[in-house]
Amino acid sequence: MSEKLQKTAITPDTHTTPPAKFSHGVRKGNILQVAGQVGFGPAVPGQAPAPVGPGLREQTLQTLRNVQAVLEKGGASWEDVVMVRVYLTDTGHFAEFNEIYNEFFADLKEAPAARTTVYVGLPAGLLVEIDALAVLG
Amino acid sequence: MSEKLQKTAITPDTHTTPPAKFSHGVRKGNILQVAGQVGFGPAVPGQAPAPVGPGLREQTLQTLRNVQAVLEKGGASWEDVVMVRVYLTDTGHFAEFNEIYNEFFADLKEAPAARTTVYVGLPAGLLVEIDALAVLG
Amino acid sequence: MSEKLQKTAITPDTHTTPPAKFSHGVRKGNILQVAGQVGFGPAVPGQAPAPVGPGLREQTLQTLRNVQAVLEKGGASWEDVVMVRVYLTDTGHFAEFNEIYNEFFADLKEAPAARTTVYVGLPAGLLVEIDALAVLG
Repeated sequence: MSEKLQKTAITPDTHTTPPAKFSHGVRKGNILQVAGQVGFGPAVPGQAPAPVGPGLREQTLQTLRNVQAVLEKGGASWEDVVMVRVYLTDTGHFAEFNEIYNEFFADLKEAPAARTTVYVGLPAGLLVEIDALAVLG
Repeated sequence: MSEKLQKTAITPDTHTTPPAKFSHGVRKGNILQVAGQVGFGPAVPGQAPAPVGPGLREQTLQTLRNVQAVLEKGGASWEDVVMVRVYLTDTGHFAEFNEIYNEFFADLKEAPAARTTVYVGLPAGLLVEIDALAVLG
Repeated sequence: MSEKLQKTAITPDTHTTPPAKFSHGVRKGNILQVAGQVGFGPAVPGQAPAPVGPGLREQTLQTLRNVQAVLEKGGASWEDVVMVRVYLTDTGHFAEFNEIYNEFFADLKEAPAARTTVYVGLPAGLLVEIDALAVLG
């Protein structure tokens, strides 16, 4: 590794500016880290971001799409992801979440990512947050 | 890095199939990520996984053994681990958890992994979840 | 990668010995992982570590300084960090935390790190915990 690795912020067109000095995703070398995504719909200029629906299904699918947008903007795909961290607010959501997760990843070809699921607090209205670590190459 | 890195799912013989499309561990290049492990005993065909005991000690030791099984199946050991994430359900468990952790790692030769400990919700009956990131080579 | 990578524990002078067999930070190859840091003031021999103040501002700034001490002792800086994990205890702290975070990172030159923020339990008196992953080179 004789050349300096470039560190690049990843900002999908669908995403609003983060509410603080962090990036939706960062790539450095062959590591791509996706920041915690929630179920916000595509950014609308002049409007604050809002979750796509009150339900777990809509929020989970949108959250996964938001992670995917960062991956793709950074030159990666779900096939490159080695770790997914899932933050839910209610242990009662585990079974339904897994169904949705399985549907979403039905066509995955490579080994599925590892995953950790824990139950935490999230801002009002949010039921799920997901981040991901990808190794490219 | 001219060759494509292979991404490999790691499935120890002792582990049940994950409840959704994720892997117990994934290795890609020199990165090995272990998914969140809990204190489930060795898989018994036809039976749902269950924690080894109601107490913190038994669950913690089994959880650490489950992380270790993934590491070893992936060609790594605790000596390669750079980060351990510990999820407990009760701040009152911190001191006892540390005692058990220290006993378990008494013979570690390399620098111990970094660690973050936070208190979250887990499914009923589980007191601890642990995941780990290893860098091989 | 034909040579064995060295794994090094990082122990800033300002830090007390961890309460269990883990390291404040670990570097292996071009990966540097900082363990979860809290708002403890600089170590005083013979005294247990204590947070610098009851308020979010003081604790957050001290926590960030503690992360920075590990980065610097390991030969890295905030410019190398790709992921910051923030654990808060109260969703009501999000806005103020972001203000402090932005002030702290006002002079950052490279792309800001990705970030995940979740709300968890922490030992009594602690309002924030932060860990970080850096990719050097």
